[in-house]
Amino acid sequence: MIFIDACFRKKTPYTPIWMMRQAGRYLPQYMEVRNSVKDFLALCKDPKLAAEVTLQPVDILDVDAAILFSDILVIPLEMGMDLKFKKGEGPVFENPIRDFKDLEKLYNYPEERLTYVYETIKIVRKKLSKKKALIGFSGSPWTIATYMVEGRGSKTYAAIKKLIYTNPKFMHALLIKLTEAIKAYLIKQIESGVNAVQIFDSWASALEKDKFFEFSWDYMVQIAEFIKDRYPNIPVILFPKGVAGYLDGIYGKFDVFSVDWGTPMDLAKNYLGDRYVLQGNLEPTRLYSKEATKEGVEKIIKIMGAKEGHIFNLGHGMLPDLPVENAKYLVELVHDLTKR
Amino acid sequence: MIFIDACFRKKTPYTPIWMMRQAGRYLPQYMEVRNSVKDFLALCKDPKLAAEVTLQPVDILDVDAAILFSDILVIPLEMGMDLKFKKGEGPVFENPIRDFKDLEKLYNYPEERLTYVYETIKIVRKKLSKKKALIGFSGSPWTIATYMVEGRGSKTYAAIKKLIYTNPKFMHALLIKLTEAIKAYLIKQIESGVNAVQIFDSWASALEKDKFFEFSWDYMVQIAEFIKDRYPNIPVILFPKGVAGYLDGIYGKFDVFSVDWGTPMDLAKNYLGDRYVLQGNLEPTRLYSKEATKEGVEKIIKIMGAKEGHIFNLGHGMLPDLPVENAKYLVELVHDLTKR
Repeated sequence: MIFIDACFRKKTPYTPIWMMRQAGRYLPQYMEVRNSVKDFLALCKDPKLAAEVTLQPVDILDVDAAILFSDILVIPLEMGMDLKFKKGEGPVFENPIRDFKDLEKLYNYPEERLTYVYETIKIVRKKLSKKKALIGFSGSPWTIATYMVEGRGSKTYAAIKKLIYTNPKFMHALLIKLTEAIKAYLIKQIESGVNAVQIFDSWASALEKDKFFEFSWDYMVQIAEFIKDRYPNIPVILFPKGVAGYLDGIYGKFDVFSVDWGTPMDLAKNYLGDRYVLQGNLEPTRLYSKEATKEGVEKIIKIMGAKEGHIFNLGHGMLPDLPVENAKYLVELVHDLTKR
Repeated sequence: MIFIDACFRKKTPYTPIWMMRQAGRYLPQYMEVRNSVKDFLALCKDPKLAAEVTLQPVDILDVDAAILFSDILVIPLEMGMDLKFKKGEGPVFENPIRDFKDLEKLYNYPEERLTYVYETIKIVRKKLSKKKALIGFSGSPWTIATYMVEGRGSKTYAAIKKLIYTNPKFMHALLIKLTEAIKAYLIKQIESGVNAVQIFDSWASALEKDKFFEFSWDYMVQIAEFIKDRYPNIPVILFPKGVAGYLDGIYGKFDVFSVDWGTPMDLAKNYLGDRYVLQGNLEPTRLYSKEATKEGVEKIIKIMGAKEGHIFNLGHGMLPDLPVENAKYLVELVHDLTKR
């Protein structure tokens, strides 16, 4: 698989590409499936339909990898938290976790209840071309914890940051619980057939530098090392979003560092390019325009070269109103421009 | 004034401190005034009350500078846009600006209608101790434009970024209009009595590097240079939030670079400390705890030294539920630890 070879810096015929949130609302075919079920969670929990939308972007765009269709919040859901997706507001937990008493109420071993995810993986892997990789994923402990503690979207993360500074013991207990669950969850994804895993730390940038390394990065690295020790042939991709100012502190045993669009690719290359394969980082809104797409792609390829050490991706997820046609154009362009 | 001397890197008896959003909801005295009027805008438009809340933090906390109480959106308001502050949602423009036709409808010279701001400044400057500085301010063209184009709070800034990539001519026209208004507005603030000005680019981080310099930073620098050419004794402070990855590109004639908490102070010092005085950058949520406050202050002072070249501040605005007691403690601590 070209994508897996690229994760290990092996020779590939071109730079592979996939797109974060490539299975999503910008695809009419996705909307059709999505509208056939009650809500977003119902789609995550239906292996047949989840497999179908996982496969769509591979068929439509010819990306080099599929990414499991699911949500980072299935872990707290299967820990027994009451998760609702409210229109215009996103995910909401009516009873957030704020202290040890709340924490004790959570179920252990959520990974054992996530059977619908493993079922989805098995269906996808059976139907997907052997040349294409299937990427499994999880949220990072910190990012999942922000939702569990804040209860709903927050601009300031005041509730969880108050805990960071006033009750770090509790915060570490919550993060350890999540870390253990994520380790087991990703191992089960691997044993069900995924070829690589990515950990999304979408709210990394909510933490100042020292606290990012203490409350987020260190746990991500623990998970990565746990996986690498057991499955050295499975690439581990880490994606801490918005940490351009913290790159000098990045450490750990993993394969691919995923670069968000707010981190200039040359900066990431200088700090991390020797140690890790870099993934990224086109500004997704460039896809509103073919010219802007081309300009962005050429700039990134100029920095990374049409050679090993780079996987093309967006610097953040696809938006619902981006034109499918431009996404197709992006895939073709990257394949064309990086042919060796 | 110690604060003004510090902006010009002159010798001062200690490192001065003020706090972004120091006149705000965490102060019971502010809430009393706020509750006596219909809404937030009514407070901005009442010079006597706006002056009162501007002065409160100087009296209560003994900070070294007052900052004018107002809002960055008074400019689009006085360009004729219908501004509402909706509960739980923040500011909303029901009719956002999306094309040249919308742009033509805006009034010119909003600065001439902002008389209530200049009135506030005159009252404050009359009542404020001669040892304390009064800081005037404006939003940056880009940050004000995001509100005018998006119409309401956005996580993705998809509407304005779509314009950046598909209709840059229109975006530049809007930004030029705002730049001209802000130049005139800040000059009028200075002529009314402010001793320094700060330009807040709160949404700098919504732009990838090249686009940040083209659509935001360049206009901020144009404004700064316009002011410095006319009033060389008025310090100009620029605050682009969330640009830790772009520091190598910072240029221009201004005095103080304000560092947000996501940009490590040692990184900012390495890139910019020789050219600009640095302001910042305590993580505001550290103020939930005295211990965390002390730890954060000591770390910053260790990097910047108890010497010229640094103005202490938070790395972002005060939050409504932070304890006043800890804010007082912070001011005393900074003054104590930096005595020369």
